[in-house]
Amino acid sequence: MGIHCVAIGACGRGKMDTGVPRMAVRTCWAAAAGAAVVALLSAAIALHWPPLHAVLQRAFSLHTAHSTKDMENFFQLVRNIVPALTSKKHKGQDGRIGIVGGCQEYTGAPYFAGISALKVGADLTHVFCAREAAPVIKSYSPELIVHPVLDSSNAVEEVEKWLPRLHALVVGPGLGRDDLILNNVRGILEATKARDIPVVIDADGLWLIAQQPALIHGYQKAILTPNRVEFSRLWEAVLNDPMDTQNHSGSVLKLSQALGNTTVVQKGEHDLISNGQHVLVCSQEGSGRRCGGQGDLLSGSLGVMVHWALLAGPQKTHGSSPLLVAAWGACTLTRECNHQAFQKYGRSTTTTDMIAEVGTAFNKLFMT
Amino acid sequence: MGIHCVAIGACGRGKMDTGVPRMAVRTCWAAAAGAAVVALLSAAIALHWPPLHAVLQRAFSLHTAHSTKDMENFFQLVRNIVPALTSKKHKGQDGRIGIVGGCQEYTGAPYFAGISALKVGADLTHVFCAREAAPVIKSYSPELIVHPVLDSSNAVEEVEKWLPRLHALVVGPGLGRDDLILNNVRGILEATKARDIPVVIDADGLWLIAQQPALIHGYQKAILTPNRVEFSRLWEAVLNDPMDTQNHSGSVLKLSQALGNTTVVQKGEHDLISNGQHVLVCSQEGSGRRCGGQGDLLSGSLGVMVHWALLAGPQKTHGSSPLLVAAWGACTLTRECNHQAFQKYGRSTTTTDMIAEVGTAFNKLFMT
Repeated sequence: MGIHCVAIGACGRGKMDTGVPRMAVRTCWAAAAGAAVVALLSAAIALHWPPLHAVLQRAFSLHTAHSTKDMENFFQLVRNIVPALTSKKHKGQDGRIGIVGGCQEYTGAPYFAGISALKVGADLTHVFCAREAAPVIKSYSPELIVHPVLDSSNAVEEVEKWLPRLHALVVGPGLGRDDLILNNVRGILEATKARDIPVVIDADGLWLIAQQPALIHGYQKAILTPNRVEFSRLWEAVLNDPMDTQNHSGSVLKLSQALGNTTVVQKGEHDLISNGQHVLVCSQEGSGRRCGGQGDLLSGSLGVMVHWALLAGPQKTHGSSPLLVAAWGACTLTRECNHQAFQKYGRSTTTTDMIAEVGTAFNKLFMT
Repeated sequence: MGIHCVAIGACGRGKMDTGVPRMAVRTCWAAAAGAAVVALLSAAIALHWPPLHAVLQRAFSLHTAHSTKDMENFFQLVRNIVPALTSKKHKGQDGRIGIVGGCQEYTGAPYFAGISALKVGADLTHVFCAREAAPVIKSYSPELIVHPVLDSSNAVEEVEKWLPRLHALVVGPGLGRDDLILNNVRGILEATKARDIPVVIDADGLWLIAQQPALIHGYQKAILTPNRVEFSRLWEAVLNDPMDTQNHSGSVLKLSQALGNTTVVQKGEHDLISNGQHVLVCSQEGSGRRCGGQGDLLSGSLGVMVHWALLAGPQKTHGSSPLLVAAWGACTLTRECNHQAFQKYGRSTTTTDMIAEVGTAFNKLFMT
């Protein structure tokens, strides 16, 4: 099964009873619909065949066995990329993930990203941060390997020597906007591209991309994960048109295209994922809690899953973009963690509570 | 419903059975009463109409449906200001709170205030502390963003550049009395007032105010939260009269007036809250445990709730002062956390145990 324009929506509270969210699959030029599926159809975009009437037919078939099957197929694609845990495995095979971030003010974000990568299933995570941030990040967890190099004059060289051992890089959690550090990150991104290593870019990593979009333009192994503010900043950096605030899916598609089909995940009420050809909508039920750090859970998870998806190869993703499959999986997981934590802690939920849910959420979603 | 002079008392152990504390409403010149309500009437003060006989009639009607309804109305005012958690929310909307404090000796207090703000429902908290304190405060929790700037020569500038992003500031937890730091805090307070940002002042922030009351005089978005010692110090700084130690409510009213109607929360056996016009009494059942840090739970909670109250606007507080509603809510919550933790841990209760109760206490009090 190839992925085209796909909208996936959890069925609200009812989902808790069955564990089976419902889904609509759409490949379309444009779409509009009634209240029952308005949340899904708000993501309607301009794309290609099949024509509108077929799309709407599928979009409205939310409650049929057919749509459940489509959804199941999509969950199955994620399941297909999750590596089996066999007794023959050795350390590092399931993921050695690098996190680039952590500075004077921000130390929590790279920790959240790193520990999330481990909890999802990576074997090792390396955090490359500013010297001052290193002891603090180390103190959060003995699970992380932390390199205090990001503000040094030879930071690029220091990170580059680790690149051959890394399967994916997450750039941005707690990065800050110090000029020296951002300049080093430029070099690290160039070295990462030169080695064809997948890279997830979030937070102030996106601030850097907005300053210099060419850094990532056209790189087919990059995924950008902007929130609303970061998305607007990127839009202004690479597009002259005003953004159509009513057409979120169209906007994410357009931004991805303007970045040379770099994959973009726009986080929001629904997460929209596009590689400039297709748009996925992830509407797994989360909660209204928006505490800081949730984006780091997503970027860390995505770091692992993009490695898995690329390693699994096209036969496992049935011809679909591995990056789209990984992004949909990480978004779904993050939202489920939010949902599970919120069920327990309500308004007092913090990101630490969400990360504690990764194991059960992952099993529920992808190991059944 | 406007708030006048209100005394709210939990009905002792019996409250645990019904979840409904009882209440007396009084607007008075002076009052005195018998043993059954002595705890409430000890807060009697000099104010305005209706006359004494009417006041006493109401004060003694503790067990009537009327008083229960008044109390419920008051809880309802707090519920009215709590923002709904909808799926359309984005990070930061429910509160970006700054904590100014943390020095060589004190690192726990700003952590307690910051994490309490998050647990109550803020999305982000920023701690601005002395350089030496920063790594320690960071290490307590990856949820906090910690800026090591408070003892630097450009501290005011460093904090000021964050002010446009902050909804409220809590000044004082773990501040200490270092001259350089206090001088920086003077500048931060001036910048905060210039931007009309609400500010909660506690601990050595109050020591600074006692040295220079003009810093806060007449600022209508300030709330001071003195304990007994801090209250006496403020009193001596701004009033020539000896304090009437038998008339706590009258004293808090008078201090607030002398500070230009700055809101004052006098913490004690009952918490007394005044804006120079009205006095609220919060007697939610707590415990006799008085370990350090409880005041930080209050100030951090209050930082969030004052933002919510001002955001909600006068129609949600039914014309009552948003600062009074926020203060009453934060006092009630803090006392309930104390009570719940004490039920579990007794004499060994510490502030960490209380903060662990924030979620359930908040739900019990304000989400029903």
